[in-house]
Amino acid sequence: MKAEIIAIGSELLTPNRIDTNSLYLTQKLNDAGFEVHLKTVVGDHADDIENLLRAALHRSRCIVLCGGLGPTEDDLTRAAVARALQRPLSTHPEILEALRRRFAQRGYPMSKINERQAEIIEGAETLANPVGTAPGMWVEEKGVCLVLLPGPPRELRAMFESQVLPRMAGLGGGRRLERRSLGIQGLTESEVDARIAPIYMSYPGVQTTVLSAAGCISVWLQQWLSLDEGASDLEELSGRIQEALGDVVFTTADEKLEEVVGRILRRSGQSLAIAESCTAGMIGAAISRIPGSSVYFRGGVICYSNELKTDLCRVPPELLERHGAVSAEVADALARGVRAAARSSIGLSVTGIAGPGGGSEQKPVGLVYVGLADATRCTHTRRIFSGDRQTVREFATTIALGRLRRFLMPGETIP
Amino acid sequence: MKAEIIAIGSELLTPNRIDTNSLYLTQKLNDAGFEVHLKTVVGDHADDIENLLRAALHRSRCIVLCGGLGPTEDDLTRAAVARALQRPLSTHPEILEALRRRFAQRGYPMSKINERQAEIIEGAETLANPVGTAPGMWVEEKGVCLVLLPGPPRELRAMFESQVLPRMAGLGGGRRLERRSLGIQGLTESEVDARIAPIYMSYPGVQTTVLSAAGCISVWLQQWLSLDEGASDLEELSGRIQEALGDVVFTTADEKLEEVVGRILRRSGQSLAIAESCTAGMIGAAISRIPGSSVYFRGGVICYSNELKTDLCRVPPELLERHGAVSAEVADALARGVRAAARSSIGLSVTGIAGPGGGSEQKPVGLVYVGLADATRCTHTRRIFSGDRQTVREFATTIALGRLRRFLMPGETIP
Repeated sequence: MKAEIIAIGSELLTPNRIDTNSLYLTQKLNDAGFEVHLKTVVGDHADDIENLLRAALHRSRCIVLCGGLGPTEDDLTRAAVARALQRPLSTHPEILEALRRRFAQRGYPMSKINERQAEIIEGAETLANPVGTAPGMWVEEKGVCLVLLPGPPRELRAMFESQVLPRMAGLGGGRRLERRSLGIQGLTESEVDARIAPIYMSYPGVQTTVLSAAGCISVWLQQWLSLDEGASDLEELSGRIQEALGDVVFTTADEKLEEVVGRILRRSGQSLAIAESCTAGMIGAAISRIPGSSVYFRGGVICYSNELKTDLCRVPPELLERHGAVSAEVADALARGVRAAARSSIGLSVTGIAGPGGGSEQKPVGLVYVGLADATRCTHTRRIFSGDRQTVREFATTIALGRLRRFLMPGETIP
Repeated sequence: MKAEIIAIGSELLTPNRIDTNSLYLTQKLNDAGFEVHLKTVVGDHADDIENLLRAALHRSRCIVLCGGLGPTEDDLTRAAVARALQRPLSTHPEILEALRRRFAQRGYPMSKINERQAEIIEGAETLANPVGTAPGMWVEEKGVCLVLLPGPPRELRAMFESQVLPRMAGLGGGRRLERRSLGIQGLTESEVDARIAPIYMSYPGVQTTVLSAAGCISVWLQQWLSLDEGASDLEELSGRIQEALGDVVFTTADEKLEEVVGRILRRSGQSLAIAESCTAGMIGAAISRIPGSSVYFRGGVICYSNELKTDLCRVPPELLERHGAVSAEVADALARGVRAAARSSIGLSVTGIAGPGGGSEQKPVGLVYVGLADATRCTHTRRIFSGDRQTVREFATTIALGRLRRFLMPGETIP
């Protein structure tokens, strides 16, 4: 069944704001058997909304509208839908009473303007708003269902879960969508695509998307199936992709690299400390994002200045003098030093030139060293990334987590 | 003049990907005098694209299409536009030759499939692609201009700057858009709106949007003016808003809090060190995002474990025992300790309970202390944030930067 999403609000047509509700809605609609074939953002103009709706009624079986249900004059969704459906709009006494109670409970008088939120399209079912004032609506018109939801994500989600999903059961036309994803670190997007395109091309029923974000590649697979169909192709395709790529695949369960690394550390009873120069906290921020990471993450040093490299990370000053802060020798010394300072099983370090200044011919902007040390091993990796300051730092963070994962893999020799 | 943006690609209709090109395009179109009144995302289906275009030709003076110009069978934009305009599509020998040369230079044979990228709509001007293979097109039809751009952001931007902007000059109908923004820290979104709504409501010509992100509020103002109109209302309105809000306004120049803090540090010749417990690197990552921050930022300690609080940040172990790691006393000691360890002018510390575990009745999840110390002062702030782990950490990061800004303001007494 075809569904479309219409986001309403002039602020979504500025360079500063984007509609993100549609990502959540797409997932929920897919789960209910609807395929989202169109998404539109329209401003607060009654005619534009009405024209859009007239077209939508001819092409979609489900139309989800978000936003424009507030109390102000900008909030035109109710009236525009009523006009497109040629149905009257009238004040619903019970909703009006509920709005008044809600305001009274909070000790505010309800202003006249809020009465508009009690206006309901003839024949519509009201969708209660568990976390805000604007009620939603569910309207059916010649086999098409229209769902009117408030724009604030918290309200939209609460209403969708409690009010819309139960009403959608069985409307999706007996289809289901299966999804699967693989997380990859250690190859570029085009290397991944070159290796796996011959495989996924032979599964035309599966939609395959290869995405790249700062050194991590993800492959998304999805396939529509009818409810009476058995297993999808995803298990098999995902297995073949994994086989083709080898151990650069770090997850098939939609995990982040820091989750995978955290799980290995926790299971093996090891602890980690980090010394971050050019990333200056980004690796710590990523590792500590995982709840319970304090079990294995000791913390570390943001050694942005040479003094902190020598004073807290125990790097000999002559090493800094001889090789410079961005060097294999200092990366090694930082990893060993922060491990000793924090008395952790493993020490991880990053030192590099994020730019835009500070580069030279021998040490260009984008040059990054990652160091790793445990009780018996000490190793480093050298990379040169292109891109702006923040891009270099993001790549450095991903590579550091990726190298840490390899370092933790049993029997792994780091090349 | 009305413009609309159509993003083409089935992957943009999955729960994993969002069109962000339209933010860039909106800004550029606005600058050229076009108002974006509609944005659509459509999948790789020729009929859907064609129907959409037929409707767009009646409602917009400029239609920007992004994506679907690649060499594969999914890339349908050229053919769909040709059909909607009822114009033939034919191979352009010069472009074909240029494509062949590009492949030869890189040592690849050009496959048959790539020849599709040399197909041009009759009457269209070709837009050279400085950074990729797919050329774009500029087509005019009964006073409407259609612009076909490649989907990858890097290619889209390069083509827009070099090929599209020069062709757009003078087409915007003699209007210009003026924008201004204010950054605010220290009030909630509803407090800001309550104070400034009576002011901005009296400027109906200005579109005002209040946005909130993890403790920072931004107020965006924009106003359309004809080219012969003089000054906009933005200067005056922005001034009145600033007056109403006072020194919680940290920028009127679209700066981030860490930029403002960095500028104050640099100008006053002071240096900063930080001790981060629950934020574990997020504040360091923010401060170091600014190029040149190494002038004033020494780094610091990610004191995720109690041992690093005592060993590297010089917190007396008995203080941790008596008051616990999340306490005013430890926040103060961390700020003083990291300042001493890094020999910086100022020490900043954060300690808190990010959750989901670790809370108690006296010290609930969301409790955060921010400590600040210089040669003569030491102070702390206590806050309780609601939300998930990452939200608490993001709020803590913003509050820490906000408190640091207040600490740096001359003559400021921290309440």
